[in-house]
Amino acid sequence: MSHETKSVDFQTLSKIRTFQKHESEARSYCRSFPAVFTKARGSFMTDMHGQEYLDFLSGAGSLNYGHNDPEMKSALVDYLMEDGIGHSLDMHSAAKAKFIDAFNRYILKPRGLQYRIQFTGPTGTNSVESAIKLARKITGRKQVIAFTNGFHGVTQGALACTANTHHRSASASTLCGVDRYPYDGYMGEGVDTSEYLEKMLTDKSSGQDAPAAILVEGVQGEGGLNVASMAWLKNIARIARKAGAMLILDEIQAGVGRAGQFFSFENAGIEPDLICLSKSLSGMGLPMAVTLIRPDLDFWKPGEHNGTFRGNCHAFITAATAIEKYWSNPAFERGIAKRAEIVTDALQTIFERNDNVSIGLKGRGMMQGIEMASGELADQVVAECFKEHLIIETCGNEGQVVKVFAALNIELEDLRNGLNTLARAVAKVSAQADKAELNKQGVKA
Amino acid sequence: MSHETKSVDFQTLSKIRTFQKHESEARSYCRSFPAVFTKARGSFMTDMHGQEYLDFLSGAGSLNYGHNDPEMKSALVDYLMEDGIGHSLDMHSAAKAKFIDAFNRYILKPRGLQYRIQFTGPTGTNSVESAIKLARKITGRKQVIAFTNGFHGVTQGALACTANTHHRSASASTLCGVDRYPYDGYMGEGVDTSEYLEKMLTDKSSGQDAPAAILVEGVQGEGGLNVASMAWLKNIARIARKAGAMLILDEIQAGVGRAGQFFSFENAGIEPDLICLSKSLSGMGLPMAVTLIRPDLDFWKPGEHNGTFRGNCHAFITAATAIEKYWSNPAFERGIAKRAEIVTDALQTIFERNDNVSIGLKGRGMMQGIEMASGELADQVVAECFKEHLIIETCGNEGQVVKVFAALNIELEDLRNGLNTLARAVAKVSAQADKAELNKQGVKA
Amino acid sequence: MSHETKSVDFQTLSKIRTFQKHESEARSYCRSFPAVFTKARGSFMTDMHGQEYLDFLSGAGSLNYGHNDPEMKSALVDYLMEDGIGHSLDMHSAAKAKFIDAFNRYILKPRGLQYRIQFTGPTGTNSVESAIKLARKITGRKQVIAFTNGFHGVTQGALACTANTHHRSASASTLCGVDRYPYDGYMGEGVDTSEYLEKMLTDKSSGQDAPAAILVEGVQGEGGLNVASMAWLKNIARIARKAGAMLILDEIQAGVGRAGQFFSFENAGIEPDLICLSKSLSGMGLPMAVTLIRPDLDFWKPGEHNGTFRGNCHAFITAATAIEKYWSNPAFERGIAKRAEIVTDALQTIFERNDNVSIGLKGRGMMQGIEMASGELADQVVAECFKEHLIIETCGNEGQVVKVFAALNIELEDLRNGLNTLARAVAKVSAQADKAELNKQGVKA
Amino acid sequence: MSHETKSVDFQTLSKIRTFQKHESEARSYCRSFPAVFTKARGSFMTDMHGQEYLDFLSGAGSLNYGHNDPEMKSALVDYLMEDGIGHSLDMHSAAKAKFIDAFNRYILKPRGLQYRIQFTGPTGTNSVESAIKLARKITGRKQVIAFTNGFHGVTQGALACTANTHHRSASASTLCGVDRYPYDGYMGEGVDTSEYLEKMLTDKSSGQDAPAAILVEGVQGEGGLNVASMAWLKNIARIARKAGAMLILDEIQAGVGRAGQFFSFENAGIEPDLICLSKSLSGMGLPMAVTLIRPDLDFWKPGEHNGTFRGNCHAFITAATAIEKYWSNPAFERGIAKRAEIVTDALQTIFERNDNVSIGLKGRGMMQGIEMASGELADQVVAECFKEHLIIETCGNEGQVVKVFAALNIELEDLRNGLNTLARAVAKVSAQADKAELNKQGVKA
Repeated sequence: MSHETKSVDFQTLSKIRTFQKHESEARSYCRSFPAVFTKARGSFMTDMHGQEYLDFLSGAGSLNYGHNDPEMKSALVDYLMEDGIGHSLDMHSAAKAKFIDAFNRYILKPRGLQYRIQFTGPTGTNSVESAIKLARKITGRKQVIAFTNGFHGVTQGALACTANTHHRSASASTLCGVDRYPYDGYMGEGVDTSEYLEKMLTDKSSGQDAPAAILVEGVQGEGGLNVASMAWLKNIARIARKAGAMLILDEIQAGVGRAGQFFSFENAGIEPDLICLSKSLSGMGLPMAVTLIRPDLDFWKPGEHNGTFRGNCHAFITAATAIEKYWSNPAFERGIAKRAEIVTDALQTIFERNDNVSIGLKGRGMMQGIEMASGELADQVVAECFKEHLIIETCGNEGQVVKVFAALNIELEDLRNGLNTLARAVAKVSAQADKAELNKQGVKA
Repeated sequence: MSHETKSVDFQTLSKIRTFQKHESEARSYCRSFPAVFTKARGSFMTDMHGQEYLDFLSGAGSLNYGHNDPEMKSALVDYLMEDGIGHSLDMHSAAKAKFIDAFNRYILKPRGLQYRIQFTGPTGTNSVESAIKLARKITGRKQVIAFTNGFHGVTQGALACTANTHHRSASASTLCGVDRYPYDGYMGEGVDTSEYLEKMLTDKSSGQDAPAAILVEGVQGEGGLNVASMAWLKNIARIARKAGAMLILDEIQAGVGRAGQFFSFENAGIEPDLICLSKSLSGMGLPMAVTLIRPDLDFWKPGEHNGTFRGNCHAFITAATAIEKYWSNPAFERGIAKRAEIVTDALQTIFERNDNVSIGLKGRGMMQGIEMASGELADQVVAECFKEHLIIETCGNEGQVVKVFAALNIELEDLRNGLNTLARAVAKVSAQADKAELNKQGVKA
Repeated sequence: MSHETKSVDFQTLSKIRTFQKHESEARSYCRSFPAVFTKARGSFMTDMHGQEYLDFLSGAGSLNYGHNDPEMKSALVDYLMEDGIGHSLDMHSAAKAKFIDAFNRYILKPRGLQYRIQFTGPTGTNSVESAIKLARKITGRKQVIAFTNGFHGVTQGALACTANTHHRSASASTLCGVDRYPYDGYMGEGVDTSEYLEKMLTDKSSGQDAPAAILVEGVQGEGGLNVASMAWLKNIARIARKAGAMLILDEIQAGVGRAGQFFSFENAGIEPDLICLSKSLSGMGLPMAVTLIRPDLDFWKPGEHNGTFRGNCHAFITAATAIEKYWSNPAFERGIAKRAEIVTDALQTIFERNDNVSIGLKGRGMMQGIEMASGELADQVVAECFKEHLIIETCGNEGQVVKVFAALNIELEDLRNGLNTLARAVAKVSAQADKAELNKQGVKA
Repeated sequence: MSHETKSVDFQTLSKIRTFQKHESEARSYCRSFPAVFTKARGSFMTDMHGQEYLDFLSGAGSLNYGHNDPEMKSALVDYLMEDGIGHSLDMHSAAKAKFIDAFNRYILKPRGLQYRIQFTGPTGTNSVESAIKLARKITGRKQVIAFTNGFHGVTQGALACTANTHHRSASASTLCGVDRYPYDGYMGEGVDTSEYLEKMLTDKSSGQDAPAAILVEGVQGEGGLNVASMAWLKNIARIARKAGAMLILDEIQAGVGRAGQFFSFENAGIEPDLICLSKSLSGMGLPMAVTLIRPDLDFWKPGEHNGTFRGNCHAFITAATAIEKYWSNPAFERGIAKRAEIVTDALQTIFERNDNVSIGLKGRGMMQGIEMASGELADQVVAECFKEHLIIETCGNEGQVVKVFAALNIELEDLRNGLNTLARAVAKVSAQADKAELNKQGVKA
């Protein structure tokens, strides 16, 4: 993040200075990508000079269909032109009905699922907050079980569940009500961490209070593209049931196709009690979030959990369009699979050729990445990519995983180009590392 | 809320059934207004049959300029048509720069204020969460002082500050880190509640731990249109400074002109350490929120508080347009004052004519209301108004205050019409009450 | 406390050095009284040189009958000589039965009270912990209401209820579950603080969650000898009942006769749900504590709240003896009243003669004191008294109240002598203050 | 516990009824041992009919030297007869000096240890509370790491660290600030649980906040006589140091010789930052507790952690006597070892002969036990033993471990007799189980 303003043209720099002066230090991604963006379409973003950048970040998983999808955009413009109601609190709106219909028809029904939809405040963290609150309300219990490397948002209830120290650090001891357990694979290959959780939940003297919920991601995005096996997820579901705890699947990043299917847990054959969705749900990057609630668990009283922007009709319009366009046909999922394979192959090659600086592959579906030996090396890769106009970011506990978050409908050629850029960047970083190593040895010798 | 589906036509009813089946019980406003809305413009909303409703709710204060303001709409459509980037995380975007410039030029500078702008997740509760987190980070303290009847959101950190039992009830004992004090006027006329707070903060054995922040609304919206005097606010600011606590003004509902000026505290001559803004900030009801931070207090580290939708460029575009259109000229504030006067006069008359069911006037600026003798009576007024196609809602600890939340730019005729409708509704409720009283007496006699 | 080792003979100093080297800095009273005590009887303590000190501290209220009462001592020695069981966990012991019988016969029955006795760990804080835990268990609620200047102990649950910053400061934000309210008189004469509490508990949007308990002292000992009026206590009892909260009377310091009757609340005509007793209960200063539980509220499961030393039979033996000796006859209470009158008269005179340094009288019964203008002045009084071999201490939020805590059975002559010593000490401090004032004026002039 | 009043003579029963009527349901051990005890000496307790019982419970580890040790008793009687000061708050007393000297001379010095002694309230839980509070104060951190099956007391701070659900259940969500980790052996033989803890403390995204302390027992008494290996303890000490966390050894039950040496951790070669001692410290079962503080960590301010009974001089006198008598000579430790061997051998034989109902041996030193297949079987063993006048109890998460807690100085013959009684009891329970099994099979056949 130190390269914020290196090698930036004067005009851009002057603009950036405005942000530096007036925007809070909390700003983050802009430090990795010192440009000022104006337009975007599909997998490309354009800066103030008209230069294009290939987007392998996709709004941190919020732009699974790319930027400004023409059908969604067109639907939204039409809606605006006819004075479609934009903000409707939680009053009934035709736009919301449209979304509900599409979601039931193309997402829930084909998967044999039944859920009540709660329209929460339009952010992932708000959906998580509503889910854990509802779980506590249903069970009358306080503790929520969350996992190592989990990321669930930064408002206080969600932040208590989030594992990352950087985000937790400002909370001044107010984070409470969460017990942490090792995610699948955390204790190495020999140990099934779900067994440990099960023992803790059945032993009367383990010190683990009866939990209201188990909150888990199918694939941990921010945490480093850690993948839970279907067997482990199934175990967690069984353990939750046995413990009388709600199983909450946080599908905010891994859902909406990112991990390969609409839901990341589809192959586990489980039916979560509560599901959190946001990010790519609106299709066009507009703020929207829902919590899916098993119909028999919809214990909310009217307005008990509310939020001003829970009726963002623009998002309902684009979300309905996105679902109809992409999820009414199995071809889309096949397309994701094809692209995922291309990513795997490319990353595998990169890894093999640069094993002095990279450790291995992470993730699945279209949320894969390459783990570098350190966060510093990963940052160097990101910087090298940006020089070649590829927007790509890192994740993981040390920021050591370079993650490929291309749009799910990216043109195959663009995908391959981007992966080639990435390959060159890693190779460059690898060569520099070799050189540094040689120098060090030279000095020693 | 019991009149959800009374006297609703069959087609609407059938549509509503869909919501009842698929949407969570958490839905709320839709129960008071059994219609399905499709379009909206200015102060009017239109349902699926093309019937119009006058809007005295204004998205709970999120639509201070009415629905689909033509300039904002036009700016947004233009932006969409040219593929303006819609979702930009917290990367630099030309849209954000446009907002920052307008906000500095027309809002901060003319008021002699200097603040860093933090773009939080696009909801009021997220801004509150970021503000209390930052206050805790700055001070290293835990407790936040909040007030009776305060409403600050329903995510866990904000909910701990919110006073309402209905909202607090699902939290299962996880609300912590907040101490509650009586708002201005809470202990009756004789008692200056700021004195009590000051004593508690200076007495070494009061039991009040040193606070990180004092979080206060200039006018309490949801809490019942309770108005803090400028003298009291000034005292609170002084007490906060003395205690080494951050003064956080929650301007989410009272700000952006609703209480008369852009900020509700302008006449108090104070300079809060942190200010929360959301609701009407985007101008067109799009999700957007910021936390204003005194420049020397911007202690955030990059990304420490984040959120996927903190770069909602559509909202930046409409927000910039709103500010330029309405706040570049003092005429707008004069217009608010004029309308506020009309509201006061009308409510005063209503009150005087119906003092068997109403208790008095509440609020100031364009957030005024009439306090009914009970929440039930207030609900009856709301229902009567809806029959005459006036959308109006209640607030207060018993839902006993009928609040007039017309757009700040409502046509004077529409405003008067709406107030007349309200007058008729209250009169009807008053007559019914009289009749019920007579019947009761008759029975007794 | 700075006079720890001033004007101390060499031999004592050398002994004190041992404590300074090996005992934790947490030690406290020893700093005010730089002597090494060996023996004690009645109202006198003896140091290693055989010098006597009149005890106006009485073990902070744990030695209401003086030191080594001959009957109690004799009963204990007899018990020891015949190998009476000393430590019995919570097994049935004849010693415990003896105590239960005496307590029922002479304390509860004559006052028309019925309580189950819980033998908690043998300290006041443990009794408080058990009481608030039981209240939470009974009600299923979390919050405990406690008052400004309240002192209830320093283990975490009790400490959360304790108001004093000095004691709270080491807790690192773990104190939770307590809401603080102003004690009787805290907001000045015009304000009935119980009205404020009642409003907070009935207003649905006050932000006060339904409490498990209201924890209150009849007279606040450590907090500065603040006295609750019987009317206020009665109100609190009524408010607790109405709110479904347990009323817990912390009688640890004010009980066992200190405030005039066995219980400090006897004249209020209330019947607390739970009562905490410790300090003077064992009669001879031995560790012992009980929680009295209204019979219908004894919701404990076996061993749910336990503690190794809850069966301290030595204490049971001396406690039974103390009760039989002192409380079987109304003469004892009359004796307390007589002594209290002597204290009041003496303090009144001291106050009137030294109103340049003293503010007024505090307390009632045998827990009275004189409030000095500052904690510093009070410390000077304590130091002057010690020079004349009177052991007396301070209390209050600034340590500004010099408290007369003589034994309840002190010889009248000793009481008068001690009060005379105190009078001389205050006069000396007053004269010094006058002189300092004159000097200051001289300098100015 | 259901056999509370079975087969009890009429006179005893009548006495017990008094307890049942007037003592809280919280009473516990008395339910296993329906007798009323009057006297005790050495390893024997005597009931109201003069019948003797062999004591294999030893006040839950508080009577390591048996009851009413003649030297201690004599020292205490002498002290009483000469009016030795009994209750001295934390003033300097000759009795305390005597204890400090003995403790330094015979316990700390010979082991090369240096600690400041904090005299806390005279219970184990109070020592734990002071230790975790001090750790939080020193580090400025909140979280305390505690282990599965740990038992540390039932006041709120200590209870948060205690693992047992039965004890935690009444706390109504106020337990906070503690993270739970698996004790040595908890995850089976293959897993070194200290490795897991280390990973959690070094991974920036584990979700484990930096801890103030690691609180651990060398041998878990109440938790089921689980033994930590010296290697594991050493690891924990290293991990604590690395994490900047205080290492707190809770030696309340395992200390004072119970596990073989004075401290249970002596063979690990570690030097804890804080050590909690209580139970057998006074030697004669009198309430007393201390927290040992590394001299450079004595960050307490005067009186910051206090407690009325922290100057229990009777206990200081007996504690000094106990230390001088038993710990001035290595013969005592050898005697413990010899007795421990006898216990091991006997339990081994019992286990081998009754492996239909017992699972294995637990513990070390004089805190060993036999694990039964269920808590019910263990209860049966206890009841059978009591019939033969052997007082013995259970521990463990299901109460399934019958623990042999004989005095450390028990006569060898008494020890063997008691073990024989235990052997007969287990054999009887085993035979009943066989019979029940046969009957079941018969029914099936």
